[in-house]
Amino acid sequence: MEKIVLFGELMLRLKPSGKERLFQSPCLESVFGGSEANVAVSLAVFGKNVCYVTALPDNAVGEAAAASLRYYGVRVDALRKPGRLGIYYLEDGACQRPSQVIYDRSGSCLAVTKSDEYDWENIFDGCSWFHLSGVTPAVSAEAADCALCAVKKAHKCGARVSVDLNYRKKLWKYGKSANEVMRVLAENADVLIANEEDIQHCLGIPLRNFTTPAESYRDLCIQVKKHFPNVDYVAVTLRHSYSADRNGWSSVLLGKFGFYEGAHYDIENIVERVGAGDSFAAGLIYGLTEFDMNSEGERKALDFATAASCLKHSVPGDFNLVRKEEVYSLMSGNAAGRIQR
Amino acid sequence: MEKIVLFGELMLRLKPSGKERLFQSPCLESVFGGSEANVAVSLAVFGKNVCYVTALPDNAVGEAAAASLRYYGVRVDALRKPGRLGIYYLEDGACQRPSQVIYDRSGSCLAVTKSDEYDWENIFDGCSWFHLSGVTPAVSAEAADCALCAVKKAHKCGARVSVDLNYRKKLWKYGKSANEVMRVLAENADVLIANEEDIQHCLGIPLRNFTTPAESYRDLCIQVKKHFPNVDYVAVTLRHSYSADRNGWSSVLLGKFGFYEGAHYDIENIVERVGAGDSFAAGLIYGLTEFDMNSEGERKALDFATAASCLKHSVPGDFNLVRKEEVYSLMSGNAAGRIQR
Amino acid sequence: MEKIVLFGELMLRLKPSGKERLFQSPCLESVFGGSEANVAVSLAVFGKNVCYVTALPDNAVGEAAAASLRYYGVRVDALRKPGRLGIYYLEDGACQRPSQVIYDRSGSCLAVTKSDEYDWENIFDGCSWFHLSGVTPAVSAEAADCALCAVKKAHKCGARVSVDLNYRKKLWKYGKSANEVMRVLAENADVLIANEEDIQHCLGIPLRNFTTPAESYRDLCIQVKKHFPNVDYVAVTLRHSYSADRNGWSSVLLGKFGFYEGAHYDIENIVERVGAGDSFAAGLIYGLTEFDMNSEGERKALDFATAASCLKHSVPGDFNLVRKEEVYSLMSGNAAGRIQR
Amino acid sequence: MEKIVLFGELMLRLKPSGKERLFQSPCLESVFGGSEANVAVSLAVFGKNVCYVTALPDNAVGEAAAASLRYYGVRVDALRKPGRLGIYYLEDGACQRPSQVIYDRSGSCLAVTKSDEYDWENIFDGCSWFHLSGVTPAVSAEAADCALCAVKKAHKCGARVSVDLNYRKKLWKYGKSANEVMRVLAENADVLIANEEDIQHCLGIPLRNFTTPAESYRDLCIQVKKHFPNVDYVAVTLRHSYSADRNGWSSVLLGKFGFYEGAHYDIENIVERVGAGDSFAAGLIYGLTEFDMNSEGERKALDFATAASCLKHSVPGDFNLVRKEEVYSLMSGNAAGRIQR
Amino acid sequence: MEKIVLFGELMLRLKPSGKERLFQSPCLESVFGGSEANVAVSLAVFGKNVCYVTALPDNAVGEAAAASLRYYGVRVDALRKPGRLGIYYLEDGACQRPSQVIYDRSGSCLAVTKSDEYDWENIFDGCSWFHLSGVTPAVSAEAADCALCAVKKAHKCGARVSVDLNYRKKLWKYGKSANEVMRVLAENADVLIANEEDIQHCLGIPLRNFTTPAESYRDLCIQVKKHFPNVDYVAVTLRHSYSADRNGWSSVLLGKFGFYEGAHYDIENIVERVGAGDSFAAGLIYGLTEFDMNSEGERKALDFATAASCLKHSVPGDFNLVRKEEVYSLMSGNAAGRIQR
Amino acid sequence: MEKIVLFGELMLRLKPSGKERLFQSPCLESVFGGSEANVAVSLAVFGKNVCYVTALPDNAVGEAAAASLRYYGVRVDALRKPGRLGIYYLEDGACQRPSQVIYDRSGSCLAVTKSDEYDWENIFDGCSWFHLSGVTPAVSAEAADCALCAVKKAHKCGARVSVDLNYRKKLWKYGKSANEVMRVLAENADVLIANEEDIQHCLGIPLRNFTTPAESYRDLCIQVKKHFPNVDYVAVTLRHSYSADRNGWSSVLLGKFGFYEGAHYDIENIVERVGAGDSFAAGLIYGLTEFDMNSEGERKALDFATAASCLKHSVPGDFNLVRKEEVYSLMSGNAAGRIQR
Repeated sequence: MEKIVLFGELMLRLKPSGKERLFQSPCLESVFGGSEANVAVSLAVFGKNVCYVTALPDNAVGEAAAASLRYYGVRVDALRKPGRLGIYYLEDGACQRPSQVIYDRSGSCLAVTKSDEYDWENIFDGCSWFHLSGVTPAVSAEAADCALCAVKKAHKCGARVSVDLNYRKKLWKYGKSANEVMRVLAENADVLIANEEDIQHCLGIPLRNFTTPAESYRDLCIQVKKHFPNVDYVAVTLRHSYSADRNGWSSVLLGKFGFYEGAHYDIENIVERVGAGDSFAAGLIYGLTEFDMNSEGERKALDFATAASCLKHSVPGDFNLVRKEEVYSLMSGNAAGRIQR
Repeated sequence: MEKIVLFGELMLRLKPSGKERLFQSPCLESVFGGSEANVAVSLAVFGKNVCYVTALPDNAVGEAAAASLRYYGVRVDALRKPGRLGIYYLEDGACQRPSQVIYDRSGSCLAVTKSDEYDWENIFDGCSWFHLSGVTPAVSAEAADCALCAVKKAHKCGARVSVDLNYRKKLWKYGKSANEVMRVLAENADVLIANEEDIQHCLGIPLRNFTTPAESYRDLCIQVKKHFPNVDYVAVTLRHSYSADRNGWSSVLLGKFGFYEGAHYDIENIVERVGAGDSFAAGLIYGLTEFDMNSEGERKALDFATAASCLKHSVPGDFNLVRKEEVYSLMSGNAAGRIQR
Repeated sequence: MEKIVLFGELMLRLKPSGKERLFQSPCLESVFGGSEANVAVSLAVFGKNVCYVTALPDNAVGEAAAASLRYYGVRVDALRKPGRLGIYYLEDGACQRPSQVIYDRSGSCLAVTKSDEYDWENIFDGCSWFHLSGVTPAVSAEAADCALCAVKKAHKCGARVSVDLNYRKKLWKYGKSANEVMRVLAENADVLIANEEDIQHCLGIPLRNFTTPAESYRDLCIQVKKHFPNVDYVAVTLRHSYSADRNGWSSVLLGKFGFYEGAHYDIENIVERVGAGDSFAAGLIYGLTEFDMNSEGERKALDFATAASCLKHSVPGDFNLVRKEEVYSLMSGNAAGRIQR
Repeated sequence: MEKIVLFGELMLRLKPSGKERLFQSPCLESVFGGSEANVAVSLAVFGKNVCYVTALPDNAVGEAAAASLRYYGVRVDALRKPGRLGIYYLEDGACQRPSQVIYDRSGSCLAVTKSDEYDWENIFDGCSWFHLSGVTPAVSAEAADCALCAVKKAHKCGARVSVDLNYRKKLWKYGKSANEVMRVLAENADVLIANEEDIQHCLGIPLRNFTTPAESYRDLCIQVKKHFPNVDYVAVTLRHSYSADRNGWSSVLLGKFGFYEGAHYDIENIVERVGAGDSFAAGLIYGLTEFDMNSEGERKALDFATAASCLKHSVPGDFNLVRKEEVYSLMSGNAAGRIQR
Repeated sequence: MEKIVLFGELMLRLKPSGKERLFQSPCLESVFGGSEANVAVSLAVFGKNVCYVTALPDNAVGEAAAASLRYYGVRVDALRKPGRLGIYYLEDGACQRPSQVIYDRSGSCLAVTKSDEYDWENIFDGCSWFHLSGVTPAVSAEAADCALCAVKKAHKCGARVSVDLNYRKKLWKYGKSANEVMRVLAENADVLIANEEDIQHCLGIPLRNFTTPAESYRDLCIQVKKHFPNVDYVAVTLRHSYSADRNGWSSVLLGKFGFYEGAHYDIENIVERVGAGDSFAAGLIYGLTEFDMNSEGERKALDFATAASCLKHSVPGDFNLVRKEEVYSLMSGNAAGRIQR
Repeated sequence: MEKIVLFGELMLRLKPSGKERLFQSPCLESVFGGSEANVAVSLAVFGKNVCYVTALPDNAVGEAAAASLRYYGVRVDALRKPGRLGIYYLEDGACQRPSQVIYDRSGSCLAVTKSDEYDWENIFDGCSWFHLSGVTPAVSAEAADCALCAVKKAHKCGARVSVDLNYRKKLWKYGKSANEVMRVLAENADVLIANEEDIQHCLGIPLRNFTTPAESYRDLCIQVKKHFPNVDYVAVTLRHSYSADRNGWSSVLLGKFGFYEGAHYDIENIVERVGAGDSFAAGLIYGLTEFDMNSEGERKALDFATAASCLKHSVPGDFNLVRKEEVYSLMSGNAAGRIQR
């Protein structure tokens, strides 16, 4: 099976129980996560051959982080060195109260590792797809260098490159702007994934109002392709937040054979919002590598990605622990949630 | 007080915490449950004199299973023998993701026990009502024999017999079809409880489309009575699944004095779906034994059953831990969920 | 900073996990709470200088109760004496099933302490605002005496006095009626906070039907002011209970400069209902002490109180652990619950 | 099977997790317990026909208390009335730090119920053994009256009466001394169970020093029998506390056929100290009703009681959840704790 | 790195919290384990290249079982088929109360899988060491066939074969005796691991009393080698059970270059007894493959195995999650448990 | 009451449950701690007026850290600024396996804050005692500067200064050695607290062997006083580690009026080792400020400190949650751990 490679930061995530505010009681639920790691796990659970590249501390914390990916079948190719693992605190929102993320990732192993410490030749040997998120170059100048280097090496070795723009307001503190860095990455990508806000912040392309939302998003995708002629696919996720617990969820794709609108899901009683975008990216990569690339295949890839990420809202933790059979079932219309027995 | 007897399999139920996927974290919540056991507990909590007949392993697992019913006041008449207790794994659904049941009940004590091992004479001594669910004969040929034997003995000793058809697609693996077995049981029943799908699978009678849903269900009940003239009451539960978290819930009853439609409840933020049908059966048995059997009493029995089972959706676990005063309160219109203080 | 003083009973609250029925499993979540304590914590979290007066047992239970307020920055001025801490059991409702409170507070230290045991001179030294809820005089004759004494002393020392009527049907068992006692307290108050039912039970003033609900509530406020000319502000909270999980929430205020209707919030997936009224009182006191008292300030105070108490529905426990920046954010329209990262 | 009746107070016990100090974290483990209830459960687990008499609040707290005994097969004959359930807070000691009990049982249903509220005729119908602990008359004057009444009625109906002196320093606050009350109870008992301190406080008989401890305890038993000639059996438990975690445990019995010393157990890594005395009482009652009453039977009864109560130290909670086969196994020398597989 | 292959049954283990009796509270801790799986994980944590062969159900339970080994770096080569995963209930002993195991593994996938369903050629490709425990052939006739087949194939392909006799009294129910089956396996082994009781039950060779225990055990090893001349190494673990919480632990080895006694460890406050024997086997295999095989290397292998298994007693769960650096540290005398900071 | 000031780093401590290895299951117990914070809490629980100075991030993590001290009555004077809170992971040892600390504190707010950012004038206003541990200057050059500055300012304002040498091998990574820095601090101290290893590493003074251990430690104290004539008190804690669960614990003090040996405690079943040294320091400061400073008072201070820190081993978490009455009770010989009821 051809190898999908991902590069990024794996963090320890600390979250109070249920809807409690941070430290309201003394148990913190610990899982590991991070944008590309989330994509990696989802692809591995779908059955793909996945290799995740990162830098981790050479202690029990780093070991557990790596093991948490191995558990789901991801191969972990981690530089191990003295240092710390990045952390993020997550407080789950409810009703009108938004979820809060507090990043504690400065000085992490990944943030301080230089590009020449990785063995890129080996990493990209046999690689057919490379994926990166905009969170990684937002962490530090070193991480941005590594990201750029990886994208270029991937391109050079013939792999297809997907970039999820993934703009994070609380990062990008090291001196460069998202726009400055992300444009260069976009210039090396075959597939761009984003929401409207990401495209605005990372690529500087605004959403224009047309008669219908669909036309507006179609125009947006066309604009992106115009600025980045190297890009074959532009996928945009559409979220409507009614409250922390209820969202509308949909997507569009401008492919090589047409423009497609994904199904619209009304998601009530959301279990977890984090990782939804990553699960969409994983679904799209899965679709674009599994289905025939014609008009029907492109639509099916978008449908798969949208259904997969809809289901992610029902799974606690960063990872989308959803099997491909479950995605296909939702794609075929089984959305009623009846007990299977 | 007259004795209500039930016969069936009591299982250990293992469920991950909250909305987690199976084994996502290492704590499994253990409760005991099973269709007839659920009915038994609900009737005991309503204040009825209840005796539950089953077969259990003669070890600490079987002992705990029995104790879990004694806790709620059910008398447990269990054959104790070497062997295992059946298990079912439950993964709670959320949003568009359905709940999943994995049965691990083959080879259980109940599944391998033969009809002549039970002391039926003693069991039915003083029995005025006998209840059985379609899950029990679905387990094994031996269990089906026992179920048939029990129904016949109950009938013979003058008890009224209720059968909840309760079709389970993942069972019925031992060689006989649901239709083949359940028809015989239905021929010995005074009360049949079912949903539309159960009637289709177990009795082979389809829902026909009339002008209004009410007419369609009335027709369905009439068809059932026509095929099974011994049956005095046909109750059908109506569930509309919008998602794993939100369902519509109602019911109809064709009795001796008329046809009735139950109240319609829109149930959001469902706490637990499992056991809702059993709680309806318990409510109906309670109503048919407590209220005068005339047109008003039949309506009241249906209203009690529908309100009781509506409340079940708010209680975690298999059992409907709802007192009859709470059911009456909902029947009288108090559905707003205001704090009582 | 000027000192806000509150007097009332601090209780241990025992609640089963999640939506379980009482004692369904053996872990009880323990927090401390009580109407005035809840107001005190919310004001301290907003940054106010708060002093909470009560009586507590001189053992580890009383010590923990006091510490739970110190944690949030409340100064606790507690009489310590032999005896017990009042308890309330809380069972959280779900769907159509209401939450249940079982009070176990008779004979508590606060209930048996006489007015002359408190050092009122010291307590009110430097006090600019005094707050009391109608729960306190409902506990015992002694507590009612203390409440009346405190209100009068507060008035005398020049502090403004707010009273939240807070009618509790399960209390008022010691021989006096709510109406009898609360009217006297209202006569000494500058600010009255209530819902419609409270005003009916405590002051005997009914809601009359006018063309629109707003007019009806305006009339109700005017009636209250007519009966209690000492009162400058009448605030009424408006709750519409669709189910235990979904409520509509709004409010009105009749102030010195006008009559105002608060924003309407539709609150789905309620995390906790308890303490919402107290969080409104805290928000109103905050607003009335922070903003300029003109038409705009009065409206802003109401908006702050309404938004603060809307957010309380998302926080588990009695206390409203919401920072003022979060309240301002909701007031400015950010109600979509998007992740902040 | 002949009926063993017990009378006493059932309490809610609240304990922080593990070795935490009270309220160190917000989860309290709740179980129910009380001296006679503990004896009742142990006897029921051994297979005896047990009826426990008490007074309980007519709410969900009282219902759960009763159910916790039904779970283990105890028949509960409880007066249900408005009021509260007694509570005790338990903090588990460790190393040199002692366990702490904070009683919150004043005003409980049992404490305020008068003797004539119980239906003693019915209670003692068919009763062959009655057991009471010295904790019950220590609670209130009403409870002492009931205890005395029960003992006399039991005696009159021909039942044997066992009294466990069980002195509690933190109780006996209502005006009478332990000595005053317990002597009268002892005068109506056939079996007295105590430790050295109990005998001193309740009966005023001191331990005198003889050449060996065995002689001293033999003398003590003889003294007791001399003062209370009605008493057939005097059993004394001997505990040596090295620390909260390690105790020596033994016992002596002066019976009708001789004086016996029980086995000595060195118990390290104690799981729970509470309920050990009660488990000894249960073991002794079991032995005295099961074995032939000759010299061998009396020794066996003491050995059974000592082994049963040794095992109690390994079981969390008030109840001794140990089967009689396990007791026999320890009596026969299997004390090595090897895994049984 | 050369490949170590293991074959056996992976089970779900269900254990109540801490020292609770089974089902004393409703949370069951779930881990996966089984004799050979435990050895596999320990070897993988030491850094070995390990492949574990088994049969698992093709559902979420089987998937989680496999993932639990992948987490620690074990390669899992599992036949996936319809059926069930074996279960064992574990109740942890304390003080004089022994731990209890209740097996619920009959009818498991592994128990019913026939030898020709496995692809042995592939499995043993590149294999240099094969390990099996006596638990596997105790499960069913089919499992015994597979075990024998595997041992023979391993031998044929040039791998060294270790067998841990591991006698389980509660198994061996399918018609053959341990002695009958295990002798044949022993005839194909290079390394035999056992305790005294195993050797008695599986090989029929008793311990004879010589002047010192060391001589007795030396004699026992010599006897074993005499009966099974193919065996190069006989290792015997020596456990002295003072209580469930305190054991003495040591071992002897008769190798090719001499007879060695391992260090003696006095282990107090045991955290977990299960898996200790497996951790010894893993340590011995590690030592015999890492160290030079001379007198010094043989002694070092025994010391490594003894220290590794001593440390296992401090780790909850079936698996010995101990790094080789920690074993070396204990071997060098650091047994004082001081905090490393 | 005179003010005791402490300066140091407050960290989030993350620990797996019970004896689990790090990340063995997904719940991390979070408490806050740090050497001087631990001393501060213990002193506040003893009833002292305590002010803790530190630097904390201006987010919810920093707020919770401060609140955790306020809970116990400590006044927190914290510089709030952007940045991170230091973390330490703790894995509790068992049997022969040592506890492990992984520090993740580089780049914390305290580590990067410069001396001139603190308002030392205000901090030391009214201060009569200042305490510092050797952990603080081990963190960073900035922290060492602050520590030195604080000690000098304290000295200048007339406060007595205690320094706990507290050597940490895993810190001191920023370029200066412990010896270099700690000597200067010692030159400004009135009281030095240490164990033998600390004195060796921080002051370069070795333990010499005399006839008895007491003489050796007396000599060590005399050597310290000779090198640092400013020091009035040298206290040395003596720990003998038999295993992670059992330690011997004692101490010596060389004061102004004599040399004293503390009681020896044999501590089995240790609940928590962390914070024991800090609890000794708190006990000593308490004693030296409460008792008359003569020979008897110095002995009593040592006895108080030794008993307080003995009890700390029974309390989970960093803080010594022990009341002074409990310390006095142990000092008077009540070490048997009997239940208080």
